[in-house]
Amino acid sequence: MFKIEKKLKNKFGRVGEFITPNGIIKTPAFIVVGTKATVKSLSPEQVNNLGAQAVLGNTYHLYLQPGDDIIKKAGGLNKFMNWNGPTFTDSGGFQVFSLGEGFSSGENKFKSQKNILNRSLKISSKIQNVHTKLVKIKEDGVEFRSYIDGSKHYFTPEKSIEIQNNIGADIIFAFDECSSPSAEYDYQKEAMERTHRWAKRSLYYNNHHYLKNSGVQFPSSSNGNKQALFGIVQGGKFGDLRKKSAKVIGGMDFDGFGIGGSFSKEGLDETLRFVNGILPEEKIKHLLGIGEPIDLFIGIENGIDSFDCVSPTRIARTGMLYTKHGRINIIKAEYSRDFSKIEDDCECYTCKNYTKAYLSHLFRAQEMFASTLASIHNLYFIVNLVKNIRQSILDKNFYELKEKFLKKYYA
Amino acid sequence: MFKIEKKLKNKFGRVGEFITPNGIIKTPAFIVVGTKATVKSLSPEQVNNLGAQAVLGNTYHLYLQPGDDIIKKAGGLNKFMNWNGPTFTDSGGFQVFSLGEGFSSGENKFKSQKNILNRSLKISSKIQNVHTKLVKIKEDGVEFRSYIDGSKHYFTPEKSIEIQNNIGADIIFAFDECSSPSAEYDYQKEAMERTHRWAKRSLYYNNHHYLKNSGVQFPSSSNGNKQALFGIVQGGKFGDLRKKSAKVIGGMDFDGFGIGGSFSKEGLDETLRFVNGILPEEKIKHLLGIGEPIDLFIGIENGIDSFDCVSPTRIARTGMLYTKHGRINIIKAEYSRDFSKIEDDCECYTCKNYTKAYLSHLFRAQEMFASTLASIHNLYFIVNLVKNIRQSILDKNFYELKEKFLKKYYA
Repeated sequence: MFKIEKKLKNKFGRVGEFITPNGIIKTPAFIVVGTKATVKSLSPEQVNNLGAQAVLGNTYHLYLQPGDDIIKKAGGLNKFMNWNGPTFTDSGGFQVFSLGEGFSSGENKFKSQKNILNRSLKISSKIQNVHTKLVKIKEDGVEFRSYIDGSKHYFTPEKSIEIQNNIGADIIFAFDECSSPSAEYDYQKEAMERTHRWAKRSLYYNNHHYLKNSGVQFPSSSNGNKQALFGIVQGGKFGDLRKKSAKVIGGMDFDGFGIGGSFSKEGLDETLRFVNGILPEEKIKHLLGIGEPIDLFIGIENGIDSFDCVSPTRIARTGMLYTKHGRINIIKAEYSRDFSKIEDDCECYTCKNYTKAYLSHLFRAQEMFASTLASIHNLYFIVNLVKNIRQSILDKNFYELKEKFLKKYYA
Repeated sequence: MFKIEKKLKNKFGRVGEFITPNGIIKTPAFIVVGTKATVKSLSPEQVNNLGAQAVLGNTYHLYLQPGDDIIKKAGGLNKFMNWNGPTFTDSGGFQVFSLGEGFSSGENKFKSQKNILNRSLKISSKIQNVHTKLVKIKEDGVEFRSYIDGSKHYFTPEKSIEIQNNIGADIIFAFDECSSPSAEYDYQKEAMERTHRWAKRSLYYNNHHYLKNSGVQFPSSSNGNKQALFGIVQGGKFGDLRKKSAKVIGGMDFDGFGIGGSFSKEGLDETLRFVNGILPEEKIKHLLGIGEPIDLFIGIENGIDSFDCVSPTRIARTGMLYTKHGRINIIKAEYSRDFSKIEDDCECYTCKNYTKAYLSHLFRAQEMFASTLASIHNLYFIVNLVKNIRQSILDKNFYELKEKFLKKYYA
């Protein structure tokens, strides 16, 4: 259940609370990614201590490894990974289409949505070719190969929901086709329409499955609450398709909505405004896979209630750290004798206890604890930024915070 | 300062307390290894919570990376790595001789003392050759090459102590020549005699340095206490050399003693008995680089007060876990659906919160948190075993515990 507490004067941005079987998420919120039932290099206590409210696992990855049956037997995702707060799983759509074709080429071509945007023009024709070879899309579902061992698998909307029921997260997503950001209008339209039909099937299967299995205790729902199912709005960078998708998906009886796929950087603002203008206002909206500071401000200003993104932990593992003045690369020589903190006024565990010199040393020495400390700082930075934006809406100074923060960060 | 509280009836084994500038170590104690100023994959809080009392850093590694000057500027090892308990640094002797020659061959030939023992016959002639080429031993000191970049370095006893003064651990070791376990008697004797001369120089330099610099606040000694300097007994597997070394090193004014080098497995028991029979009884004795359960019992029974060993964390990172019934390899297929704990009655964080199936999954998925959870369990197992042995001496049932434990472990 989602409750809106306060709104920005633009009528889009809002502060709310989303009640899940495993706790309340105060929105807007940044959801920490724990792809394979672990937030990379962190203990659940470290994740909790840095202020994260919820963790998002990955349906595609967990299906392949360890297998959703194992997670179900373990008592669901929460128990399996020892995380006591709310959990999400995405539908696996993005990974099926991005990793499914990675096997033959030996590397994953889609590294992140940001990379795709940057590289879309160069690789578009190549990806389309590979897709037709290794990811076979039919009306019924998608055949793909495991990135681990090349084995063949078949996902349908029903299969995705079945897996997500087994994993038992509090919030699950309808199966969607996440097409290449470089796809032409005709293909994007076709994929979107298929996504709409799959959304309907996801919804039907989820409700039907529950009806059929009434009385069954689903893993995460120890209190008997049903998993929340979110529909995903697609349509890529085409405004009319986004509007259409928002209308169709928004008309279905989902508990909340995800907004997926790619945006042109300039268009995120406007796209979210009209998509969220069409989607039912009273329901929660999640922006999938996006988490750069500027995107967080744009998202929240335009009605996004939650975000997830691998970026804070992924860049952390390479030594890239967020600061109020932009990112720094801690491996640089200048930090090896810098005994100051990453940020003097940062309240994260890393900044309270370690110097840049120590972090720089750990990265040079390729010590695992480097990733832990850097991930804690970066996640705290983003989680806390969203928390501060939330507070700024309550305090009626969102626009001041936005201007002040972005000016410094992108100076 | 070392206080003996209670003795075993054999007059060798004992329970005591060693007072350091950063806290009291209750002995016998297992000292956790933090080679490069971090216990691999663990936070200092995790190290503390598993019951570890002290951490041992590595002089050779810390000199090369980040450099002892950086650790000194950071305020010493404790502050640098955020560890509030007692600290040790070894002399760097073992690493200079074992890693110093690794550069040209592209891999380190000495993986651990245990490996050396097993492989000694096969590689002896090769190592002697490489030694003469890449590690040049002179009366004054040793020239060696960095395993990181191949650069040339020169360690003398004075240099080793200077580095250890800079690093500022509570307990430091005299510089020794750790010769190959396969070395012939004549070479072993020559190396031992050099080690004795180096011990004298280490002691003189350390005292002289303190005298010369009186009033200087040494990094770890915020309360003004001097670092404790331990001499190292060598002599390899030759009984008469061990006796000679114990007599000479034991006659010098060290605060405690390390026993280094290699032992024949059968001879550890007897060797420790006569070495510790010669060394001053009232001083603390540390067995360097040894930490298998059976060795802990043998060591403690024969007067060893502390141990350090990389084994618990090193094998943890490969998925090998200690149990009362011996080691298990958690990556094995049989554990992927095993929802029991590693050990039902283990009180470590890992066993209290995670199943074998989860650990097995993390290892297969190559997640960093696998190393963290496995290291916590293995270190807890060993630290707690030594704690239990300590208690058994106080409770007068050491021999019962020894028999019961070893019977089950090596069944």
